[in-house]
Amino acid sequence: MTPPLPAPLVQQLCRIVGERHVITDPDRLVVYESDGLTAYRWPPRAVVLPASTGEMAAVMTLLFQEGIPMVPRGAGTGLSGGALAPEGSVVVGTARMTRILSMDPVSRVALVNTKLSEAARPHGLYYAPDPSSQTVSTIGGNVAENSGGPHCLKYGVTSRYISGLTVVLPHGEVVELGGAGKDPESGYDLVGLFVGSEGCFAMATEVEVRLLPIPEGVRTLLAIFGSLEDAAGAVTAIVSDGLLPAALEILDQPTIQAVEASVFAAGYPKDAAAVLVVEFDGTVAGLDADARRAEELCRAQGAREVQRATTAAERDALWKGRKKAFGAFGRLAPDLIVQDATVPRTKLTSVLHEILEIGRRYDLTVANVFHAGDGNLHPKLLFDRRDEEQVARVEAASKEIMAACVAAGGTITGEHGVGVDKRKYMRLVYGDVELEAMRGAKAVFDPTGLMNPGKVLPDSAPEEEGA
Amino acid sequence: MTPPLPAPLVQQLCRIVGERHVITDPDRLVVYESDGLTAYRWPPRAVVLPASTGEMAAVMTLLFQEGIPMVPRGAGTGLSGGALAPEGSVVVGTARMTRILSMDPVSRVALVNTKLSEAARPHGLYYAPDPSSQTVSTIGGNVAENSGGPHCLKYGVTSRYISGLTVVLPHGEVVELGGAGKDPESGYDLVGLFVGSEGCFAMATEVEVRLLPIPEGVRTLLAIFGSLEDAAGAVTAIVSDGLLPAALEILDQPTIQAVEASVFAAGYPKDAAAVLVVEFDGTVAGLDADARRAEELCRAQGAREVQRATTAAERDALWKGRKKAFGAFGRLAPDLIVQDATVPRTKLTSVLHEILEIGRRYDLTVANVFHAGDGNLHPKLLFDRRDEEQVARVEAASKEIMAACVAAGGTITGEHGVGVDKRKYMRLVYGDVELEAMRGAKAVFDPTGLMNPGKVLPDSAPEEEGA
Repeated sequence: MTPPLPAPLVQQLCRIVGERHVITDPDRLVVYESDGLTAYRWPPRAVVLPASTGEMAAVMTLLFQEGIPMVPRGAGTGLSGGALAPEGSVVVGTARMTRILSMDPVSRVALVNTKLSEAARPHGLYYAPDPSSQTVSTIGGNVAENSGGPHCLKYGVTSRYISGLTVVLPHGEVVELGGAGKDPESGYDLVGLFVGSEGCFAMATEVEVRLLPIPEGVRTLLAIFGSLEDAAGAVTAIVSDGLLPAALEILDQPTIQAVEASVFAAGYPKDAAAVLVVEFDGTVAGLDADARRAEELCRAQGAREVQRATTAAERDALWKGRKKAFGAFGRLAPDLIVQDATVPRTKLTSVLHEILEIGRRYDLTVANVFHAGDGNLHPKLLFDRRDEEQVARVEAASKEIMAACVAAGGTITGEHGVGVDKRKYMRLVYGDVELEAMRGAKAVFDPTGLMNPGKVLPDSAPEEEGA
Repeated sequence: MTPPLPAPLVQQLCRIVGERHVITDPDRLVVYESDGLTAYRWPPRAVVLPASTGEMAAVMTLLFQEGIPMVPRGAGTGLSGGALAPEGSVVVGTARMTRILSMDPVSRVALVNTKLSEAARPHGLYYAPDPSSQTVSTIGGNVAENSGGPHCLKYGVTSRYISGLTVVLPHGEVVELGGAGKDPESGYDLVGLFVGSEGCFAMATEVEVRLLPIPEGVRTLLAIFGSLEDAAGAVTAIVSDGLLPAALEILDQPTIQAVEASVFAAGYPKDAAAVLVVEFDGTVAGLDADARRAEELCRAQGAREVQRATTAAERDALWKGRKKAFGAFGRLAPDLIVQDATVPRTKLTSVLHEILEIGRRYDLTVANVFHAGDGNLHPKLLFDRRDEEQVARVEAASKEIMAACVAAGGTITGEHGVGVDKRKYMRLVYGDVELEAMRGAKAVFDPTGLMNPGKVLPDSAPEEEGA
């Protein structure tokens, strides 16, 4: 058990952020001991919630002086353990930093430390990346994880939309990277390096984002298949045909059943082995032709039916079902592990086949709901962590699934990050030189290793790195 | 004068790459003493041209052991001096590395060390970034400079299209960053950091690029204006209206006249104060409506005429005129300096006004041809470097133009890089902490500072850094 923070330090922190925003009471700390990934429980030593860049800098200066490791946390919806607090560390949260600092609709940029879809809409603009957690996750968390989402297929991940960052270095110094017209182009691209650094470099407190015009129209299809492999085949056919859908999402039978049993029931047919959601957006005039062509291709790949969302409400239901699928599994099992591998699109069908086979071999329920167009798989293993024998099977199956994805030329994470959860797989894809370069990149921002220790890079225990 | 390379070293290099590909003869070295930027002449000590990653690694190992600074060079079309060889250094060129190593049309990626538009076309795919140098520049050079081009407005710069890199570190070790399904997402984004590092980190020898489907249709407009400011006003109007053109390019009167007097005459009206090229691409069905709306907006901003390119040949002529404008100035003056500042779109008109005013004050011909949609200005100062008094005026005017752009919230380079030419401006936009972080980022790859010394970062003379 870590000792509580020394009382004089707590008092100093309270003076900076206010007493209510320094949490040391174990009952209140419970909220911060896990994240969107259910399997871990790491109680932090304390939680501090600054309200501004200035407060953040003052808090971090103090913690740095005391040599206390710091763990950045946004909404805590991450899925790889990146916001979990290793023993002895203090969580530094951005929950109170929720302002839109400026909005320039002509240059199509906004400076924010919160989500901004609502505020951009009156200008006909929106922020493109849409992780499933988008209604609750923070922009800082999205920057840390380089978040994706279903529409990455056409629009790309968070890094494409970040043009500037204000970050607080571990010792409390405030630095501006890019932004305010300082395009990352001038000099080395520190913004590019920072996005996706999983909170291990410094604390982002203000984010300059690029906005896009809201597409004029949208067409959403739901294709229903008798096998998961056929659905995957349709994805390959659509992409090979030269179409550029905004999204191509597959849900398999266990997922459909979980969603349909939940409050987010979307009208997916419960007897389908798989459904494929195909969405096109852009100028209205071209959309129907694209949708028709996609429908033909789905039918040629064996779709028994292709429905169209004809109203905004129908489309919303289809997407809500997809985005809330993760939560819907709670009805089926108390715990789940979600993998997040990316495989070449050409290998989708064969890797899915292998994953189903691994599930059968270990007698586990494997549910697949994933960004098929990107080849970004999210196999979910459902289990009960009170059953040790089952946990052992889940761990063995997870390892085999990951190895199968890597063997197919894939990688260990598409959008959820490495965090704590995938550190053990880093050596599957990187050698010593690459890992050493990553260590070097971290040291540029965090030479003393106090920032989010024990994450991302393998083979350095939290104790060693956070000392 | 630097001493020539020691004979035993030359022999070793010849054994690796073949005698013809080690250049030490001063007459042959002349080709390598300048780049696309005409003002500098830096003769290298030698030039070595390996044909593969393996040869590159062997060459760099040797040069590293001898402590000889290395300067990467692609086609030498850069515009900031990044490929120039400081005294004592050896140019390591990629001119012989021109293979398409693999092409996967389903995953829409290709592994190349050359340009690949021709090879991608049969698959209905293309590589989107299109710097004006695209017919001659190399993919490695594009990666080093994070090249842009007219179509960046819609499609973004090089970094968006690079998913993996094979690089040779200065001491000769080969490293793979991202690629082959190893999405940069797993761990810190070293690919993102590397793109735009201007040859100062390591040598990229193989590049994995993302390809896009060739757009179904294109509409290209030429709007003719009585003032440069009106043309800039039309750009703001088009973007504010929520349209997303593929390109928005302005050419001013001196540029029009230079182009029309050249072999690339595009049919721009010679009496126009400015022309605006507006291009839309995508699904055919929506394009005419977008083009009509853009035409209306141009007229509302004072365009006296809006022409449409009705054939592919007309469109090609418009673009060739734009892309070859740089060369066309050779008729007007023996030398030119091109600035490369980016300003917020809202400041386009006022900054252009200031630039014209500075030109008048210093009695210099300033020509403007630029990526207006991105706010990426390229004011060109025409001069004769044999006239010292004129050179002094050019330098003073350049400094004032750059300061005006930065004062408007802009930056010192949009796509040409910092190189040698803009080092002196880096302190206009960065403080010590940012510059120190950039130095740290370089040291991750190049701790001994042998890689392309004297570029990008200010205040360290080539002698110091390259020793």
